[in-house]
Amino acid sequence: MATVAELVAGLRAGDRRAVARLLSLVEDGDRGRVRRVVELCHPITGRAEIVGLTGAPGVGKSTLASGLVAAWRRQGREVAVLAIDPSSPLTGGALLGDRIRLQAHALDDGVYVRSMASRGHLGGLAWAAPHALAVLDAAGFDVVLLETVGVGQGEVEVAAVADVTVVAVAPGMGDAVQAAKAGVLEVGDVLCVTKGDLAGAERTVAELEEAQRDGGLVRTPVLRTNAIAGEGIAELVDVLSALRDERCADPAHRPRHRARAHLQVREIAVAALRRRVDEAITGELLDAVARGDIDPYAAADRLLADLDLPDTTGGSEGAG
Amino acid sequence: MATVAELVAGLRAGDRRAVARLLSLVEDGDRGRVRRVVELCHPITGRAEIVGLTGAPGVGKSTLASGLVAAWRRQGREVAVLAIDPSSPLTGGALLGDRIRLQAHALDDGVYVRSMASRGHLGGLAWAAPHALAVLDAAGFDVVLLETVGVGQGEVEVAAVADVTVVAVAPGMGDAVQAAKAGVLEVGDVLCVTKGDLAGAERTVAELEEAQRDGGLVRTPVLRTNAIAGEGIAELVDVLSALRDERCADPAHRPRHRARAHLQVREIAVAALRRRVDEAITGELLDAVARGDIDPYAAADRLLADLDLPDTTGGSEGAG
Repeated sequence: MATVAELVAGLRAGDRRAVARLLSLVEDGDRGRVRRVVELCHPITGRAEIVGLTGAPGVGKSTLASGLVAAWRRQGREVAVLAIDPSSPLTGGALLGDRIRLQAHALDDGVYVRSMASRGHLGGLAWAAPHALAVLDAAGFDVVLLETVGVGQGEVEVAAVADVTVVAVAPGMGDAVQAAKAGVLEVGDVLCVTKGDLAGAERTVAELEEAQRDGGLVRTPVLRTNAIAGEGIAELVDVLSALRDERCADPAHRPRHRARAHLQVREIAVAALRRRVDEAITGELLDAVARGDIDPYAAADRLLADLDLPDTTGGSEGAG
Repeated sequence: MATVAELVAGLRAGDRRAVARLLSLVEDGDRGRVRRVVELCHPITGRAEIVGLTGAPGVGKSTLASGLVAAWRRQGREVAVLAIDPSSPLTGGALLGDRIRLQAHALDDGVYVRSMASRGHLGGLAWAAPHALAVLDAAGFDVVLLETVGVGQGEVEVAAVADVTVVAVAPGMGDAVQAAKAGVLEVGDVLCVTKGDLAGAERTVAELEEAQRDGGLVRTPVLRTNAIAGEGIAELVDVLSALRDERCADPAHRPRHRARAHLQVREIAVAALRRRVDEAITGELLDAVARGDIDPYAAADRLLADLDLPDTTGGSEGAG
């Protein structure tokens, strides 16, 4: 079996199997190996344009993703898509059957598509996604598209670490759009009304723009696309690149790179601490809480007082 | 403004406004006050039957919940429903428009319904839900129904701390059911095929039973309900009570009480540690990571080495 160092050498040489193997190591979650992957990949990151794409289920994210990939390919750029699946034991990933729309690019060597489940990591999605982005960035992709379903806080956190984030909104969702407005305007750098051929698209664009005016907010660009017909995609790509260039022009002021570092460092530290807490919890303490002899806060205090802090690879069991 | 102690006194006297106020305090997340709520409520918990209800969006959870509430009310039991909304800035809670189905019980003093958003808590849903359950248990409800959408790891964790958990499955989901099987069988104590009048219901029951036989698993009861027509609900209520009585008969062996204590103590401790990590992270360290001078694991190690552990109410800013 190849060592992590050998795999990273392969990744630098353009070997796609090495990319796949490294992402699997991240996903498997063995702490020692994940650490090694990050150590070796991190120094060669920072070049890729990382684009977040999120939105509620059914708004047409995958069709839009496919359109974006095609547009970037026409610019001669190599593209990786990291699709975060909100698979839980209960949904079994069924929400994301439409990932197959990206199969249009399956025979194109300049496109690499990978799904990752948000399930099963101790630290959740927020822990694994930045590691995976580091692998894809180190692999030399010009653009990495991070696609997530807009359900749950984890996905929002991840969108926040992309260089620029597109929020996809379907036309005619009426109340849903109303309810989501405040949040949508927070998370997105660009709002994209999908299915632009539908009757309500123009109105939804107007509603989103009006909501920003009314709220006195900084204006977030609102675009309209029809990914199937290829309309609006080139404009979206241009807006994304311009935003990213503006943000990342001065290497001393790359807020998203810093946000990404913050998320990654924090989640590594918290995952280590969570393990330490679980190891320190005794059955005796839990019985005392279950009996009502001690309240959970007092129990947590007792636990924290007893803890010796480990380093981030401390302990012996797997993290997956 | 009433103190927490006054509110808990009100709660014990049956004042529903006090229940609402205490749940708001938990949801707001002010650490000092949440701690006080838990300290005062915890010693008077342990009596309620806590029933988890989960399943993918659209399977008919809310209709089933309404049917269960009606059945418990016919037994003369007081019922609280705690509905966890997977609201994110992007969905705005739109997934849960069907919460209104519970409004059939709006005029019944023996029913209390409360939604909580899983958004915005540092420790997420896993942190807030056990606290809210403690408030409702302390308030003297005979049954607390904890309803969550089966999307994301957090909801699964919460379902695991109910005394018994019902997983709702819609008939005719075909592949989705296949994919979800392993996980469904893990999480649920009872599997409930909803919309029992639909053609595929019988087949879905058979599939779920067959999957258990084939997997050599402990047999989880599979029931079929048609909540709108009231069919199967009385049976479901009986199965739930029997399971719960069996599990909780011996106070020394109440695995779910212990699991609840574990989740609660761990998440309190981890939330405190997460705050401490965030306080200890410096801009200097993040810049070094963003520049590639140090990798995120080494940065996390440096951070952990520098930490002094706080108690659970340490620090000064709010936790919300």
